[in-house]
Amino acid sequence: MRHPPAKEADLKFAKLDLDRLRRRGMPETIYGAGKTGAQLAAIFSALAKAGQNAFATRVGPEQAAIVQQTVPDAVYHAVSHTLSHDSVPLPKRLGKVAVLCAGTSDVPVAEEAAITAERMGARVVRLFDVGVAGLHRLLSRQSQFANARVLVVVAGMEGALPSVVAGLVSRPVIAVPTSVGYGASFKGVAALLGMLNSCAAGIVVVNIDNGFGAGVAAAMINRQKP
Amino acid sequence: MRHPPAKEADLKFAKLDLDRLRRRGMPETIYGAGKTGAQLAAIFSALAKAGQNAFATRVGPEQAAIVQQTVPDAVYHAVSHTLSHDSVPLPKRLGKVAVLCAGTSDVPVAEEAAITAERMGARVVRLFDVGVAGLHRLLSRQSQFANARVLVVVAGMEGALPSVVAGLVSRPVIAVPTSVGYGASFKGVAALLGMLNSCAAGIVVVNIDNGFGAGVAAAMINRQKP
Amino acid sequence: MRHPPAKEADLKFAKLDLDRLRRRGMPETIYGAGKTGAQLAAIFSALAKAGQNAFATRVGPEQAAIVQQTVPDAVYHAVSHTLSHDSVPLPKRLGKVAVLCAGTSDVPVAEEAAITAERMGARVVRLFDVGVAGLHRLLSRQSQFANARVLVVVAGMEGALPSVVAGLVSRPVIAVPTSVGYGASFKGVAALLGMLNSCAAGIVVVNIDNGFGAGVAAAMINRQKP
Amino acid sequence: MRHPPAKEADLKFAKLDLDRLRRRGMPETIYGAGKTGAQLAAIFSALAKAGQNAFATRVGPEQAAIVQQTVPDAVYHAVSHTLSHDSVPLPKRLGKVAVLCAGTSDVPVAEEAAITAERMGARVVRLFDVGVAGLHRLLSRQSQFANARVLVVVAGMEGALPSVVAGLVSRPVIAVPTSVGYGASFKGVAALLGMLNSCAAGIVVVNIDNGFGAGVAAAMINRQKP
Amino acid sequence: MRHPPAKEADLKFAKLDLDRLRRRGMPETIYGAGKTGAQLAAIFSALAKAGQNAFATRVGPEQAAIVQQTVPDAVYHAVSHTLSHDSVPLPKRLGKVAVLCAGTSDVPVAEEAAITAERMGARVVRLFDVGVAGLHRLLSRQSQFANARVLVVVAGMEGALPSVVAGLVSRPVIAVPTSVGYGASFKGVAALLGMLNSCAAGIVVVNIDNGFGAGVAAAMINRQKP
Amino acid sequence: MRHPPAKEADLKFAKLDLDRLRRRGMPETIYGAGKTGAQLAAIFSALAKAGQNAFATRVGPEQAAIVQQTVPDAVYHAVSHTLSHDSVPLPKRLGKVAVLCAGTSDVPVAEEAAITAERMGARVVRLFDVGVAGLHRLLSRQSQFANARVLVVVAGMEGALPSVVAGLVSRPVIAVPTSVGYGASFKGVAALLGMLNSCAAGIVVVNIDNGFGAGVAAAMINRQKP
Amino acid sequence: MRHPPAKEADLKFAKLDLDRLRRRGMPETIYGAGKTGAQLAAIFSALAKAGQNAFATRVGPEQAAIVQQTVPDAVYHAVSHTLSHDSVPLPKRLGKVAVLCAGTSDVPVAEEAAITAERMGARVVRLFDVGVAGLHRLLSRQSQFANARVLVVVAGMEGALPSVVAGLVSRPVIAVPTSVGYGASFKGVAALLGMLNSCAAGIVVVNIDNGFGAGVAAAMINRQKP
Amino acid sequence: MRHPPAKEADLKFAKLDLDRLRRRGMPETIYGAGKTGAQLAAIFSALAKAGQNAFATRVGPEQAAIVQQTVPDAVYHAVSHTLSHDSVPLPKRLGKVAVLCAGTSDVPVAEEAAITAERMGARVVRLFDVGVAGLHRLLSRQSQFANARVLVVVAGMEGALPSVVAGLVSRPVIAVPTSVGYGASFKGVAALLGMLNSCAAGIVVVNIDNGFGAGVAAAMINRQKP
Repeated sequence: MRHPPAKEADLKFAKLDLDRLRRRGMPETIYGAGKTGAQLAAIFSALAKAGQNAFATRVGPEQAAIVQQTVPDAVYHAVSHTLSHDSVPLPKRLGKVAVLCAGTSDVPVAEEAAITAERMGARVVRLFDVGVAGLHRLLSRQSQFANARVLVVVAGMEGALPSVVAGLVSRPVIAVPTSVGYGASFKGVAALLGMLNSCAAGIVVVNIDNGFGAGVAAAMINRQKP
Repeated sequence: MRHPPAKEADLKFAKLDLDRLRRRGMPETIYGAGKTGAQLAAIFSALAKAGQNAFATRVGPEQAAIVQQTVPDAVYHAVSHTLSHDSVPLPKRLGKVAVLCAGTSDVPVAEEAAITAERMGARVVRLFDVGVAGLHRLLSRQSQFANARVLVVVAGMEGALPSVVAGLVSRPVIAVPTSVGYGASFKGVAALLGMLNSCAAGIVVVNIDNGFGAGVAAAMINRQKP
Repeated sequence: MRHPPAKEADLKFAKLDLDRLRRRGMPETIYGAGKTGAQLAAIFSALAKAGQNAFATRVGPEQAAIVQQTVPDAVYHAVSHTLSHDSVPLPKRLGKVAVLCAGTSDVPVAEEAAITAERMGARVVRLFDVGVAGLHRLLSRQSQFANARVLVVVAGMEGALPSVVAGLVSRPVIAVPTSVGYGASFKGVAALLGMLNSCAAGIVVVNIDNGFGAGVAAAMINRQKP
Repeated sequence: MRHPPAKEADLKFAKLDLDRLRRRGMPETIYGAGKTGAQLAAIFSALAKAGQNAFATRVGPEQAAIVQQTVPDAVYHAVSHTLSHDSVPLPKRLGKVAVLCAGTSDVPVAEEAAITAERMGARVVRLFDVGVAGLHRLLSRQSQFANARVLVVVAGMEGALPSVVAGLVSRPVIAVPTSVGYGASFKGVAALLGMLNSCAAGIVVVNIDNGFGAGVAAAMINRQKP
Repeated sequence: MRHPPAKEADLKFAKLDLDRLRRRGMPETIYGAGKTGAQLAAIFSALAKAGQNAFATRVGPEQAAIVQQTVPDAVYHAVSHTLSHDSVPLPKRLGKVAVLCAGTSDVPVAEEAAITAERMGARVVRLFDVGVAGLHRLLSRQSQFANARVLVVVAGMEGALPSVVAGLVSRPVIAVPTSVGYGASFKGVAALLGMLNSCAAGIVVVNIDNGFGAGVAAAMINRQKP
Repeated sequence: MRHPPAKEADLKFAKLDLDRLRRRGMPETIYGAGKTGAQLAAIFSALAKAGQNAFATRVGPEQAAIVQQTVPDAVYHAVSHTLSHDSVPLPKRLGKVAVLCAGTSDVPVAEEAAITAERMGARVVRLFDVGVAGLHRLLSRQSQFANARVLVVVAGMEGALPSVVAGLVSRPVIAVPTSVGYGASFKGVAALLGMLNSCAAGIVVVNIDNGFGAGVAAAMINRQKP
Repeated sequence: MRHPPAKEADLKFAKLDLDRLRRRGMPETIYGAGKTGAQLAAIFSALAKAGQNAFATRVGPEQAAIVQQTVPDAVYHAVSHTLSHDSVPLPKRLGKVAVLCAGTSDVPVAEEAAITAERMGARVVRLFDVGVAGLHRLLSRQSQFANARVLVVVAGMEGALPSVVAGLVSRPVIAVPTSVGYGASFKGVAALLGMLNSCAAGIVVVNIDNGFGAGVAAAMINRQKP
Repeated sequence: MRHPPAKEADLKFAKLDLDRLRRRGMPETIYGAGKTGAQLAAIFSALAKAGQNAFATRVGPEQAAIVQQTVPDAVYHAVSHTLSHDSVPLPKRLGKVAVLCAGTSDVPVAEEAAITAERMGARVVRLFDVGVAGLHRLLSRQSQFANARVLVVVAGMEGALPSVVAGLVSRPVIAVPTSVGYGASFKGVAALLGMLNSCAAGIVVVNIDNGFGAGVAAAMINRQKP
C-alpha cells in the first residue's frame, strides 16, 4: 500500500490537518480545553496563513483574549465558549435545523451545537426554553420545529425532552445529554442513559455535553442532496 | 430497656409478625419469590388460623396452585402475580389513586401497585396505555388523573413518563421504574436514574419493579386524615 | 392542538414561569447553583415586580449578599443555604411534617427540606440528632414524630435511618440520601441504594441531597384534603 | 387543552396506535421480545384487518410459526429475527444507505437495521465483513460505501469500526454497538462507550443491539427532501 | 531462598494442602460450587485417607448424594448447603459467637457462618429473625447477644442490621451482606455498601454471601487467648 | 417502650454523646473533615469540661492550631492527621496488634489505625514498608507479626498485601484499602474489591481509608477476655 | 488509495481470512462460542481444503463431536475447551513460556493460554497450583519459572498472583484475570482491576478469561529474534 | 524460612530498595505524585550517594526545581513530567520500540513510555500524530513501525488505535489508555475497555495513563535474548 504524504502544518505541539475540509467536508476544529492561549494563538495564526477558517470549542475568555492579541479579528462567542476566525466566507445557510433545550443551564451546549451547524451551512432555529415539566411551552411552539430537516434536542437531569419531541415529529432527532444536575445524575450519565433507551424511534445520541458533535451531524444531515 | 415479647407465629422457616397491622397500619405481606409453594401454603394457613388476611406478591401460577390445595379460597391475580386470601373484609375503598403506565410490558408492575393500594383502602383508577412518545393519549385523558390524591406512574426504558405527568398535576407522584428494556437500560437502572433526576418537583421514587412499595405509599398518602 | 401563549417573564438568560403557582400549586423555585449573584438578583427583582414570592436553593452567602443589594428585604437562611423574598404572605402552616436526621453533616439538607415544606404551608417538627448507632435517642423521641402526617428522613453514609423510622410509624416516609461520607459511600450512592432497598414498606426516595424535592412532596402530602 | 380521541385498536393486552404512520412517518413496529406467539398473532391480525402493514423485531422462529398459523402470508426473516406482513405495498426504495459490520456475530443486528431501513423506503448496501483488525478489506471496498447518504456501522467488542469509517467519508455515521464480546465488554458497554467517545465528528449512536432504531434514523435521513 | 517441599495430596484436578491446619489453624475447606460430585467424592476420600476432617461449602443435595456413595458417613447440612466428614473429633466448643439475621432468605448464609464457626471450636447462638423494620424483636432479645465475644450479622437488601446491632454492643461485629433483594439491590451490592459505610465503629465486612469467611474470622476472634 | 433521657452535651451545631464510653466501650470520636477549627475547639472544650478524653480524626494542621488556642494541651499527630486531648489517663496498652503497610503513601491511614488502637488499650507493632512486589522484606519480618492477636493490613493499588499476610498467620486480618493509586484504581475501589475477594479466609474489610474503623475493631478483638 | 482484493474463503455465514498467517504471523483462530457445530465443521473443512491449520477456542464437547464427524482427525482438548486440526506441521517449540495459576478453577483459562502459545512455537512450562495464600508452594518452585522469557499468570478472585510473581522475576508478566469468584468479584472485574493496578512494573493485562490472547502475546514475545 | 536482611536506605518517610536493579533488572523508580519537593530531593540525594541512577515520574516543574537545588545535575523532562539523575551510564540503546499516539493530548503519556524504555536500554522511535480518524497518516508511516520488536500504542477517547495498529503488524502491542476525553470517556475507562476488548490478538494493556509501566514492559520485551 502506498499513500501520498499528508498535507499538514507542523506546529511543535501539534500537526494541523489542512486537508480535512476536502476529505470530510468540514475543516479541522480545535478542541480548546487543555490548550494554552499561546497554543491556540499559534494554531489560529497557522490556519490564517494557510487561508483556512479557524473554529475552536471549549475556549474560556482568558484564552480567547490571548488569541485576539495575535489574531485581532478572531471573534469570541461567550455563550457557546467558542472562538472563530474566518479567512474565507462561510457557506450560505440553507435548510432548517431546530435546536431545542429546556433552559438556562443547557444553553451553552445547545448554542455550541447551533453555531457549529451554522458554520457548516445550516439555517438554525433556536428554541431554548422548552422543558418536559412545562409541556404547554413545548406544545405552543410545535410549528416552529416540526418542519425542520433535523432536530438537536439538548437536555440534562433526566433527559426526557428528546423522547417527547421525537413523538411530535417525523424527522431525525439528535439527542445531546448535558452534565447539568447533581447527585444521581452522575454528571450526565442519567440523561445519556435516558436518551439511549428512548421509546421513540428515530433518536440518535452523542456524548455528554457534545454540542459540537451534534452540530456536525445535524449539518451533515441538513445538507443532504438526493 | 425492657420490651414485651413479640406477638408472632413460628413456622420453622419463618416467624410471622401478627402485630404489624396494629403497629404499622398494614398487615404483613409475603414476598413470594424464592419461597416454595409448600412454604407459602403454610404461611397462608397460619394467617387464616390467626384470622388475618394474607397477601403475597411475586407468586407464580404453580406456587398459587399449591397454596390453593391447602387454602382453596385463596385468589390468584394473574396479571399482578399476586395471591390473596381474606379472613376479614378489606377496608372500604375511598379517595382516589391514579396508576399510570405506558403499555404492555409495564402492566404487571402497575397492577401490583393498584391491587396493593386497593387492599389498603384506596379507590384506584388505572390508565395503562399512556406513553411519552404518544403524548396525545396522555393529554386526552388528563381529566381522569388530574384530581387524584396521589399518582403512581410506572415506566421502563427511559422512565420519562413521571416527569411529564408531574408537570400536569399538583399532587404527589410516586414513580416506579421497571426493568423493561434492553442494552443500556441496565435492567431498570436507566429508568430509575431518570426518575431520581426529574426536573419536576413532587416526584418520589421506589425500587425497580417495586409496585408493591408504591402501592403501600400511595395508600398511606391517600388515606390521610387532616 | 392549540395552546394559549405561556405566561412568563423573559430575562435574557432565563424565562420565568409566572403561572406555575396556579398550575402546580407551588411557585417556581430557583436553583441557585451555577447562577451568578447578578442573575439571581435579576430573577428576584422580576418576581418582586410580578408580585410573586421568590425562593432559591443552593445559594452561597456571597450570592445572597449581591441579591440583597438589589432586593434588600431578601432573607438569607444560612443553614439551609436558601434565600427568600416574599411579596405576599406565605400560606398558614397546618398539619405536621417531621424532619429527622442523624447529625451535624446532614443538617443543611434536612433544613432545606424543612424550610421548603414550611413555605408551602406545612407545620414542621425538626429532630436533627437521631442516628441508628445511638438507637436510644431515636426511641426516646418517638412521640414527637409518630403522629406526623408524613416524615422526611435524611441520612448519609449507610442510609439506614429511614428503615428504622418507618418500622416505628404508620405514615409515609420520604427518604433523602445525602452525599455525607467517604470512600465506598460514593458521594451518597450507598445511602441512596440502602433507601431504595429498604425492607420497610411505605418508604419513597428522592435524589441525593435533594432536600427541596423532599420538602415539596412532604408539603403536598401534608396538605391533603380528603 | 382539548385533544381528539386517539385512533387505536384495543387488544386486551395492548392498544395499537393506528395513526402513527400519519403522525410520525412510520407505522407502529412491534417489539417481539417477551410477547407470546398468540399475542403477536393477534396484533398481526388486527393490523391486517386495519389494512396496515405489520413488522415485528426480536421474533424467534417458534413465535413466527404461531403467527403464520393465523396470518399465513407473514414472512419470517431468520437472520434479522424479524417478521413482516404487508397489506399495502412498501414505499419504493430510493437513495443509498450503507450498512457495515465486521463479521458473523454482528450480522443479525446489522440485518435488522438494513431490513428496517428498506421497509421505510431506503435502498441499502450491505458490507458485512469489514473489521478494523483487517483494514485492507475495509479500504478495498471504500467505493461501495463512500457515496452513501448515511452509513450504519455495527460493531461489538471494542467498537472501533465507526471511528475508522467516519474518517473515510463526509456523510453522517450511525454507530450501533452490539453485545458481542465477553468479560470486560460488559454486554456491549465497551463498544457503546467507544462509539460515544469517537474522535471522528459526525458519529451518532443508538442503544446496544438497537439495529431497528438505527434503521429508522437512517431511513429518515436518507429520504431527506431539501 | 530455600523452601521445603509442600505437604500435599495430588488429585489430578486439584492438589490438597494437607498442612494448612498446622500453618493457619484451620483445615483446608472445599468450595463446592463448580465441582462435580465425583470430584468432591475424590477429595473427601483423600482427606479421609489422610486422617483429616473434610468440610465443603456450597454443595447441592445431588452433589452430596454422590459423595455419600463413596464416603457414607459424610453428613449433609441442608440449610447451610454444606457437607462434612470428620475423621477426628472437632475441637470443643468454647466462648460465644452470636449469629444474627433478619429472616427466611438470609438464613442459609447465616447458617453457613454458624456451622463454620462451630467446627472451629466456637459456641454459637443463633438469632435468625431480628430485622430493623421490626425493632422490638431485636431489642427484646438484646440479652442473648450483648455478651457474645463477637457477632456475625447477616443482612440483604439495605443491609442496615449491623449498624443497629453494633450500636447496642461493645464487641466486634462482622457484617455479611447477602444477595437477597431485587432491582437496585444489585445482588448484594447495596447491602455491601451500606455495611462498609456504617456510622457505627467496630464493624468489619466480608464478601457478599460469604458466610464461611465470616465464620472463620469469628472463630479466630472467639478463640483469642490473651 | 420507655427510654431514659439521653446523657449528652448540646453544642448548637452538634450534640455530644457523653455516655458512649459506658455503652460501647469507647468514647465518642470526632470526624474532623468538614468541621471548622472553631467547631472542633468547642467540642474539645466541652469534652474537657465533662472530664472526658477527646480524639478527632482527619484534622488538618490549621484546624489543629485553632483548637490549640482554646485547649493548649491538645496534641496534634501530624502523620495520622489526628488530634487528641486527654483529661483522664488512657487505658494501659496490652496484647499485640500488628499494623502493616507497603510504604510512604499508605502510612497516614496505617498510623490512624495504630494510634486509634493504642488509645483503646492495644500494644501496637508497626511494620510500614512491606509490599507484595518485594516479598523478601515481608518474609524477613515474619516473626514480628506472626504472633500478634490481630493484624491490620493497609494497602492501596491492587490491595494484595492482606491475602499474602493472611496466608502466613493464623490470626484474624483486618484489611484496609486506601485511595492510593490512579486510573483504574478508582480511588481505592480496586483495592477494596481485591480484599473482599481474597482467597485467604479470616480476612475482614473496612471502608476505603478507614484506618480509624480498623483500629477500633482491632482493639476490640485484642482486648478479648475469655 | 488502491488495495488488492482480499484473499479469503467465503462461507455464507463468514468469510475466512486465509492471508492472516502471512500478514500477522499467526493463522486465523475461530472463536467457537455462539457458533453451531455445523458452522464450525464448515470452517474446519474449508481450512483443511485450503491446506491451513485450524484452531478454535471455547468449543464444547458436543460442538467438537459434530466437527469430528466431518473432519475426523480434528483433536478436542477437553481441559482448554479447544479444537484443532493441523494440515501442516506446527512450528517447532522453542524458548520458554511459563504459565502459572492458583488451582482447579483457573486451569481451563491457563491451559487455553498454554496450548495457544505452543501452537505458535513456544515451549511451555505449566505451574498450575501456586496461589498467594500458600506462598510456600510458589517460592519452592521459583527456579521453574524465573528463567522463562515471558510469564503468563492466571488468577481469579482478588487477582494478586501476578504482582507477587512479577516481584520475583525480571521478565515481562502477562496477567490474565478469570471470572472465578462470586459476589463482589463481579465476574472477574475485581481480578482485572487488581492486575491493572499492580505495584509491580512489567505487568501487562488482557481481558477477563482471555487465555487465548495471553497465549498469542506470550508466543510473540517468546519468539523475539534480536 | 530464613531470609537475608533487605538492602535498603532508610529515609524517615520511605525505605529505598537498593537491590531492585539486581533482582528485577530495573532500578527503583520514584512515583513523584503526592511527594513534596523536599522528599524527592532526599531520595535523589540518597540514590546519588549509593551510586545509583534516579528516575522519577509525575514530577511537576516546581518539585523539579527544588530537587535541582540539592542535586544540580538532575535533568527535568518537561514533556513527560519526569526527572532523572544518572550516576552511572545508562545501558546502550538497542533493538527497536515504536511508540505511537494520536496527538497533542496523549503526548505526555507516550513520552513517559518512550523515556522509560530508553533508560532501560531500548532504541525508541516516536510516531506521535497518527490517529484512527485520519487513517492516511498512519498508513503512510507503516514502514517506520512495522519492524519494531514491540509497539507501545497510546490513545484516549475511544482507544481504537491499538486495534488498527495491531492489525498491521506481527509483533506484540502494548496499549496504553489515557484519561484524555470528557463525558462518557469516564477519565480513560472507555479507552481502557476498548483496548481490553480489542478484536486483534497480541494486544496487552496497562493502567490508564501508565506510560511508565508500558515503557518497562516494552524494554523487557525488547531486550529479549533468545
